[in-house]
Amino acid sequence: MSRILFRNARVLTVTPKVKIRREDLLVDGNKIAKTGKKLKVEADRVIDCQGNVLMPGFKNGHAHSAMSFARSCSDGYRLWDWLNKVIFPMEARLRPGDIRELSKVSFLEYLTSGITSCFDMYLEPHEQTQAAKDFGMRSVVLLQPAGHPERYDQYRHEFLNGHMADGLVTYQLGFHAEYTVNYPELEKTSKLAHEYRLPVFCHSNETYRDVNSCIDRNRSLRPIEFLDGLGMFDYGGGIFHGVHLSENEQYILKTRKVGIITNPASNCKLASGIAHVEYYLEKGIKVGLGTDGPGSNNALDMFREMYLVTALQKIQTNDPTALDALTVLQMATCNSAQIMGLSACDDLQEGKLADIVMIDLNRPSMQPINDIARNIVYAGGKDCVKMTMIDGNILYMDGKFYTKEEPSKIYSKAQEITSRLKREVRTAAYLPTRIIK
Amino acid sequence: MSRILFRNARVLTVTPKVKIRREDLLVDGNKIAKTGKKLKVEADRVIDCQGNVLMPGFKNGHAHSAMSFARSCSDGYRLWDWLNKVIFPMEARLRPGDIRELSKVSFLEYLTSGITSCFDMYLEPHEQTQAAKDFGMRSVVLLQPAGHPERYDQYRHEFLNGHMADGLVTYQLGFHAEYTVNYPELEKTSKLAHEYRLPVFCHSNETYRDVNSCIDRNRSLRPIEFLDGLGMFDYGGGIFHGVHLSENEQYILKTRKVGIITNPASNCKLASGIAHVEYYLEKGIKVGLGTDGPGSNNALDMFREMYLVTALQKIQTNDPTALDALTVLQMATCNSAQIMGLSACDDLQEGKLADIVMIDLNRPSMQPINDIARNIVYAGGKDCVKMTMIDGNILYMDGKFYTKEEPSKIYSKAQEITSRLKREVRTAAYLPTRIIK
Repeated sequence: MSRILFRNARVLTVTPKVKIRREDLLVDGNKIAKTGKKLKVEADRVIDCQGNVLMPGFKNGHAHSAMSFARSCSDGYRLWDWLNKVIFPMEARLRPGDIRELSKVSFLEYLTSGITSCFDMYLEPHEQTQAAKDFGMRSVVLLQPAGHPERYDQYRHEFLNGHMADGLVTYQLGFHAEYTVNYPELEKTSKLAHEYRLPVFCHSNETYRDVNSCIDRNRSLRPIEFLDGLGMFDYGGGIFHGVHLSENEQYILKTRKVGIITNPASNCKLASGIAHVEYYLEKGIKVGLGTDGPGSNNALDMFREMYLVTALQKIQTNDPTALDALTVLQMATCNSAQIMGLSACDDLQEGKLADIVMIDLNRPSMQPINDIARNIVYAGGKDCVKMTMIDGNILYMDGKFYTKEEPSKIYSKAQEITSRLKREVRTAAYLPTRIIK
Repeated sequence: MSRILFRNARVLTVTPKVKIRREDLLVDGNKIAKTGKKLKVEADRVIDCQGNVLMPGFKNGHAHSAMSFARSCSDGYRLWDWLNKVIFPMEARLRPGDIRELSKVSFLEYLTSGITSCFDMYLEPHEQTQAAKDFGMRSVVLLQPAGHPERYDQYRHEFLNGHMADGLVTYQLGFHAEYTVNYPELEKTSKLAHEYRLPVFCHSNETYRDVNSCIDRNRSLRPIEFLDGLGMFDYGGGIFHGVHLSENEQYILKTRKVGIITNPASNCKLASGIAHVEYYLEKGIKVGLGTDGPGSNNALDMFREMYLVTALQKIQTNDPTALDALTVLQMATCNSAQIMGLSACDDLQEGKLADIVMIDLNRPSMQPINDIARNIVYAGGKDCVKMTMIDGNILYMDGKFYTKEEPSKIYSKAQEITSRLKREVRTAAYLPTRIIK
């Protein structure tokens, strides 16, 4: 187990408030062993931070990492068309191993943006897990048995029965969305949640259309009302998006301790709307930040999301003081972490997991120095990420990747898969060829 | 005069349409000498692009480069409070030489974002010019005689009488805004414009408040109606922001060939509103992109502006097909250039000035390759800028600066000035201390 000592850092912590202290920080194995002024400790490696910032890694609260194949593949669709005309036909042609390879392109991008973990919702938990372990990415993999009857028993046996954490990878229970999963399957998911007292996670209230379709199908109940009626959130959980939520739905989320992961870039690009983030926070609902997938964003950049979420609140409320930047910094770190069940790495404190980012204050956007924490939100970008450490391992530094697999290999495998998917969809008779670029 | 040959590039051109060709490109001195497949030419330096993109540098159509002192200095104000309580008091304490030094921090950031020229509106044209020449930044400096009676003659003599271009630096005529300049001074500016048949540039229609204050003061005329009544735009020009424009004002702008520089990040952060960019373009008004100053943005990042302008149009019109990414790419390059009077570097063609950016397709956000041009808009960021060349000189490559002055020197001078300004404003009795962080 190696010990890395960071000297002369500005250590930025986010709980209970955002603070910056001039300190040293010692990583021992995969944990933060000590922080303090001029630490007198032995270490295998000493890194002089030269006054640069060490902060908790960003937690990407909502991701579909394997969807790198869909990046700039077909921009300019509404959510439902985009799903049905582009995404679902391509996904139907994924082969075993594809998801494992495609995920790694996104993992590389997470490193460039200081993202040290992702809440990954996709089709094959085993492949997602394998990708994360191969790569060294901290990943929360969502288990979605709905639609696959055999998976209820399988997941119960494999993951739920005392094996919910597997080193870098942990698991949560959930389903895609109310509008894609039928009633009996939702009931079965809820039953499983009760059996193991598990929180549940899903897409919800992303567009007016999904809300209204639920109202039409379910005796005038809105999605959160309907799902809560199934006892879905009896042990908490979280929803992804939550753009259009009624007062009553917000009340249910607050009461059931269900968090919201907001995805401002994706919600803009698909014209889904602007989530009322500031209202949610005022009501005591925990709100975290996510990028959504590379097909609907298209970048996986927490700096983009941080700027957007505060900029959009200012526009929506016509108030430039809306959603202070320090709250945004917490959304992208500790709030997301806590919703994801990753409290063990939600901040930089002794005993926490060593998921750490170094922000380079010598980039022009960080100069001159006035208010470092707010400036990271308002002016930061990928070029300010000097180092990304996950679980005590430096995987990215000074623009270079220190991953087991070379980026060029990851790219070429992903390109091969993507080209094949596009070719197969284009040649399928029932699809107009123009939709896939 | 050195000759640089770029081999194996994807050359992205933007006029009349966005196109990508696999070509070589030869720079001779400060111009693009030749493009074509496998050029057989001599060169002093050969750069193998390995399939990466060469594209025209971004043109920052609206900037206050010297305002780096105000970055994250006081976030969370409305435009008018921000100007009167924070910015004007600090500006009043600027000393000779400060503007020259402060500008260079922004110039460094432009390089990191592939911005090769800026339309710089600030207080001291001589210092702005000196900064651009010292640094090697292509700069359009706005001459604003209004409020300084002696400057009308000085500018007429120095700049207007046949000396409007000075190598890297060119000049344009303008004024701050209708709401900060009195009637006689506006008349004098318009007279000067007529004398030399010059386009005129100014802030306009940024907030409801500036529009309404104009209506109150000027016989119910809106800003563009009022200014046009003074003959201000008889030779064209441009307005910065243009968030709130009536149909009649849009008609005037179109008729007078006045462009609009939109600044989406600044307009969000100050809660000014969302410009109806797509309507303006449909009406045939030329719209370019700008960052505004580092105090109100706070980043100087054309990738941020490109993403925001299209994302906000999609939200505003509730249509994910609004404002196609290829149009956005033109806004950030040739449209801005043409409004700024920089047609000589609006695209990558033989004979044009060599203001060139190389986009690194080997960054994860650019992978896999599906639609390169749109992906630059939707997923690009500063970390994708592999090289920035201005006037034939490579000033930035692989994250390193090749400027005459070391970034560390530029930073320390700017920090010294900024700290002094904050100290002086804090100790001024009439200002509450809390407003400057």
